[in-house]
Amino acid sequence: MNLNPDKFLNQLFQTAVDAAHPQYTLNKYLPEDTTGRCLVIGAGKAAASMAQALEQSWKGELTGTVVTRYEHGAYCKKIEVIEASHPVPDDAGLNFSKKVIELTRNLNEDDQVIVLLSGGGSSLLSLPAEAISLEDKQHITRALLKSGAPISEVNCVRKHLSAIKGGRLAKACYPARVTTFAISDVPGDDPSSIASGPTVIDPTSSKDALDILQKYDIIPPAAVFNWLNNPKSETVKADEPSLEKCDYHLIATPQDSLEAAAKLAKEQGITPLILGDLEGESRDVASVHAGIARQIHKHGQPAKMPCLLLSGGETTVTVKGNGRGGRNAEFLLALADNLKGHPGIYALAADTDGIDGTEDNAGCLMTPDTYQAAKGLGLDSGKYLENNDGYGFFKKLDSLIITGPTRTNVNDFRAILILDN
Amino acid sequence: MNLNPDKFLNQLFQTAVDAAHPQYTLNKYLPEDTTGRCLVIGAGKAAASMAQALEQSWKGELTGTVVTRYEHGAYCKKIEVIEASHPVPDDAGLNFSKKVIELTRNLNEDDQVIVLLSGGGSSLLSLPAEAISLEDKQHITRALLKSGAPISEVNCVRKHLSAIKGGRLAKACYPARVTTFAISDVPGDDPSSIASGPTVIDPTSSKDALDILQKYDIIPPAAVFNWLNNPKSETVKADEPSLEKCDYHLIATPQDSLEAAAKLAKEQGITPLILGDLEGESRDVASVHAGIARQIHKHGQPAKMPCLLLSGGETTVTVKGNGRGGRNAEFLLALADNLKGHPGIYALAADTDGIDGTEDNAGCLMTPDTYQAAKGLGLDSGKYLENNDGYGFFKKLDSLIITGPTRTNVNDFRAILILDN
Repeated sequence: MNLNPDKFLNQLFQTAVDAAHPQYTLNKYLPEDTTGRCLVIGAGKAAASMAQALEQSWKGELTGTVVTRYEHGAYCKKIEVIEASHPVPDDAGLNFSKKVIELTRNLNEDDQVIVLLSGGGSSLLSLPAEAISLEDKQHITRALLKSGAPISEVNCVRKHLSAIKGGRLAKACYPARVTTFAISDVPGDDPSSIASGPTVIDPTSSKDALDILQKYDIIPPAAVFNWLNNPKSETVKADEPSLEKCDYHLIATPQDSLEAAAKLAKEQGITPLILGDLEGESRDVASVHAGIARQIHKHGQPAKMPCLLLSGGETTVTVKGNGRGGRNAEFLLALADNLKGHPGIYALAADTDGIDGTEDNAGCLMTPDTYQAAKGLGLDSGKYLENNDGYGFFKKLDSLIITGPTRTNVNDFRAILILDN
Repeated sequence: MNLNPDKFLNQLFQTAVDAAHPQYTLNKYLPEDTTGRCLVIGAGKAAASMAQALEQSWKGELTGTVVTRYEHGAYCKKIEVIEASHPVPDDAGLNFSKKVIELTRNLNEDDQVIVLLSGGGSSLLSLPAEAISLEDKQHITRALLKSGAPISEVNCVRKHLSAIKGGRLAKACYPARVTTFAISDVPGDDPSSIASGPTVIDPTSSKDALDILQKYDIIPPAAVFNWLNNPKSETVKADEPSLEKCDYHLIATPQDSLEAAAKLAKEQGITPLILGDLEGESRDVASVHAGIARQIHKHGQPAKMPCLLLSGGETTVTVKGNGRGGRNAEFLLALADNLKGHPGIYALAADTDGIDGTEDNAGCLMTPDTYQAAKGLGLDSGKYLENNDGYGFFKKLDSLIITGPTRTNVNDFRAILILDN
């Protein structure tokens, strides 16, 4: 096999991203008749590119507005594109959401609304519930993100502090027809989790939100505590009539991207093993991947080399140090520290949205040479890991993957290539 | 397929334990001529059963002594069996080790020593280095076990505080010939890690030990700190002449046990996937297993159902609560809490030595009914997990696996069965 492992891993990542891009996927899910008049509302890292793809295919009149993360905008002729802060909401997101509520007022039953949702929509579609200030919501969001809580729990709390999530957008659009197109960035692709499910029912309760805050020792401001104990904080449940006029289409999922990468591997004679959407503390998830990679290399189990481990999902980082880097950098640094230059094992971990955490990189690349190369530069992987400084580590090794915003988001992408050398 | 999942998982565990039992494995590794005179020294959870198996096959004269954990003894006619405390050493272990050093005095080059090593030997073969008190060593061991440090790091420190580990026993036996039979309980089966390698060279240094203490914020007593800064604390390295008269045989490994379980699965038409020896925080390792099990159930990847995930190794638990239970109970509780009664997924996690942590159970069993059954009893899996109370949770569900000491030890055994139902 004449394979350049670095280049191949980069190709896999590009393939995974392309497989999730609205440019290539939205078309397939549009109705046959696209001549109607539509109000478009969208939120998420792919909102602008989804709006762009919609404009290219929709024959009828489009109006409306979408919000995406700063730097994730794309040019649209008809639909207004707003950029706002992520993951901690800011005024731009707040103003966008206020405008959305305005736009949905006075819709009648002949109106049609298209909602474009993608990962990041949860933070971007940010309108505090009536009794909550933006500051209080920001405070809670920051505390939750720092606590190591899984994203499902972060979003449960955010939904109950929101005027728009947890089915409330669909309720606001009633009696118009609402069609949602969504790109999933959550394990299991549960619509109530994608962008915190503004157009679907929510299975979680205000009490769940309170329990989560307690679990992570987060003491909420009095306004938040009182609101969560008020029945009005409850999200939309199955008995809500507006939901009958809603339909929902997943246009891209993490699985689609993993499948696309697996196909590329097979074409190269490499056995792909798709492990699925994984969650857990980054360094421990890395430790398990290291164990499986070693098993493949040593025993040819669960598959023979050449072999490719593929996984998606979203790991978490419990921040203890003050280094830089997102969860993919942390994962890969922990993997490098664990494998200590093990021969034949190459890996890439990156966020399909093109931004790992809050840095300028999508992710990082590790080869069997990484560990020694780091030592040669005086970099101790263990100490960098202790300081949560994956970005610093791989930057010094010139092993960052930098793509810029990809304008889609099916969460993390991990590829570990095990070769017999 | 007419399979009782609970019963099958129990059979798998029994098969894994049997595959590692000296009764069935030691014979194959003995020399053809067993008529010589031998001094036997042994330590570990399998020490008594290894001595027993040796007595049954060895034709020549045997003398000597072995130390095992309390309750792990077995009847021997010629070799003395001592029981001592594990994982924190006590006087019985200390006296045993003093006796070992006495027995090795004045050996000549015609003498033959057989060393029987197995997991737990590290704590049981406990003789502090000349400058260290037992209390100081116990204090450090406790602090390390509580810190969440991987066992490799715990043992690196213990080796450098020991008069017997890290190759020092082989050195003491010189110029006699030393043959070691070992049962591996460590990922990778590295002889320097099994029972802290009393008869092989040690790749770690006193400085590594100091670094580990610092990493986990453990402040050593002055005697320990001074000793680790003394060149005499260094373990045996490759230039030690006594090592030329040593040989080493692994008579059972975690992989052997996983293979035996995999064979049983295949005979039932179930596809086994051996993931290898895994390490990491129990609940995060569980989270990854949950993700892979879901992927198998939903997408038939990386294998189609019926499928069996098998793994070994040793997870760690960073203790925050005050509940009961070892790492296998914690793993399985986290798995149950994650899967929330997912259909078709059954699991067993148990320690092959028969004792998970410090309780009376080997491990626990989870079925798709576990989550609801717990709810019915008012047990909140999340809260039990927060309190590290896996034992309490599964005991109330009558789902503990209780075998008593198995008198062998190839570390943890995890089996997750995914059925299409």
